[in-house]
Amino acid sequence: MYGKMTLYFLDLLGTAVFAATGAMVAARRKLDLFGALVLAFVTAVGGGTIRDAILGSTPVFWINDPTYIEVICLATALTILGRRWWHSTRYVILVTDALGLGVFTVIGVEKALSFNVSPLPAVIMGVLTGAGGGLIRDVFAGRVPMVLRHEIYATAAIAGGLLYVLTMNFGLSREFVVICCASVVFGLRLLAIYSNFSLPRVSGP
Amino acid sequence: MYGKMTLYFLDLLGTAVFAATGAMVAARRKLDLFGALVLAFVTAVGGGTIRDAILGSTPVFWINDPTYIEVICLATALTILGRRWWHSTRYVILVTDALGLGVFTVIGVEKALSFNVSPLPAVIMGVLTGAGGGLIRDVFAGRVPMVLRHEIYATAAIAGGLLYVLTMNFGLSREFVVICCASVVFGLRLLAIYSNFSLPRVSGP
Amino acid sequence: MYGKMTLYFLDLLGTAVFAATGAMVAARRKLDLFGALVLAFVTAVGGGTIRDAILGSTPVFWINDPTYIEVICLATALTILGRRWWHSTRYVILVTDALGLGVFTVIGVEKALSFNVSPLPAVIMGVLTGAGGGLIRDVFAGRVPMVLRHEIYATAAIAGGLLYVLTMNFGLSREFVVICCASVVFGLRLLAIYSNFSLPRVSGP
Repeated sequence: MYGKMTLYFLDLLGTAVFAATGAMVAARRKLDLFGALVLAFVTAVGGGTIRDAILGSTPVFWINDPTYIEVICLATALTILGRRWWHSTRYVILVTDALGLGVFTVIGVEKALSFNVSPLPAVIMGVLTGAGGGLIRDVFAGRVPMVLRHEIYATAAIAGGLLYVLTMNFGLSREFVVICCASVVFGLRLLAIYSNFSLPRVSGP
Repeated sequence: MYGKMTLYFLDLLGTAVFAATGAMVAARRKLDLFGALVLAFVTAVGGGTIRDAILGSTPVFWINDPTYIEVICLATALTILGRRWWHSTRYVILVTDALGLGVFTVIGVEKALSFNVSPLPAVIMGVLTGAGGGLIRDVFAGRVPMVLRHEIYATAAIAGGLLYVLTMNFGLSREFVVICCASVVFGLRLLAIYSNFSLPRVSGP
Repeated sequence: MYGKMTLYFLDLLGTAVFAATGAMVAARRKLDLFGALVLAFVTAVGGGTIRDAILGSTPVFWINDPTYIEVICLATALTILGRRWWHSTRYVILVTDALGLGVFTVIGVEKALSFNVSPLPAVIMGVLTGAGGGLIRDVFAGRVPMVLRHEIYATAAIAGGLLYVLTMNFGLSREFVVICCASVVFGLRLLAIYSNFSLPRVSGP
């Protein structure tokens, strides 16, 4: 119960920071207030929405829990009002975003498994939940999605998702597995940020 | 019954003009006939399709009523054949498009409410139905969506949707609420067109 | 039974070559390995996924058959490892892609019909299954979708889909109709490749 509340709180924290990155991209592209809200919205819940549509879990998760919408609106407002502090808070944003990626990935894998999905598609649902929103945000903003380019972002989510499905039958407590996997995603993403490490590009002739 | 027929007729009128704007964008981007059909299609039914997928109302609305598809094909054909009159009909298009926005928004809010969705997500479903198609059209055509940029478009839909959920428990007749809300969207949009009024841009550092 | 196995085999072959074209686009846009996997994935199963979400056939097809995911991963790996042979194999790719288009279209039409969809929307579901993945691939890669531009691609799928719904009540065996329709798509697409024939562009003022 306590763990469930914590995961829900972290989920909302991830939602808020994902929304903030959406609002920031909107500002950089000189969109209007509605554009900021839309990008905040698709970044925060876009991945989970597609996951739920694919699994057939409809109405999708945020329809029946208005808290998500409220958190997104609040985060967008705070992001726009506080834009003079963006530069000084950018590490806080990057670190919270990495935390959100871990939490979203684990939530996505668990939701897929609760629909009796086999392990490999469950990992994909985890990655989609974690990285799908940022991808849609970038497509809407008219730029090639950041997650498809030289950065360890989705790769961290893949690693965490694989760890989950590999260890889930080891008899470990669910909470322990959740914490471990989210931490692995979080840790790999932090490592990538601090070391500027990235996947090799694919190059064609 | 009479009101229901009128709403359905206005829905088809909105479908036709949304399709026409899709075909026009296709022509400006030098796409082929199939590209024009696809852009017409996603502009006209894209928002409602995503709404239905989110709500779990499948098969989505246009699958079981071929009239939508027929209207879209006809509108696309007429738009392409009549391209020499685009300039002289542009105000007709803008005004009909504003009408379509109002009708689509109200239909989206009502459909969400018929699925027992709470008010805030219902407003989002209304805005999605009204403005979602134009957004996808622009993403497919490779430009930053018009609705995300300095124009009162989605904002008019938000106002109409909010008015609906605020007044629906006042004991007013459903038809009266529908007409009022669609008219508010239509009026705000017309005002924006004639005054070139727009939302302030969000600007970042 | 034998025919069903053959169709499934052709489906996987189409999946593999669609995935390969996704990985190639990723390489040309200098995306990373994850970007290549994502583009391979959306090209191969994107159209069918949207079709299933529209029809309400959830969880979507590839969730319960991991073979699709395995084929995509394998095809992506082979495509990247074999990039020095892309130029010399480009006709093999084009021809196999045309075959995949035919197979995917027929599968899409049949799936829609199995949901009691009327003929016109069933044709649209066929075209979506065949050409939708390539469209999403191009949007994600930040270019105007190839299928919307001057090429006979989706048009071949439309022709095959229409033939299917027109002949399905003629009392012909299902296998014969499937083979004929897939062959028509395949043949038209090959003809377009070899003759560089394309649809007229729509041009506006």
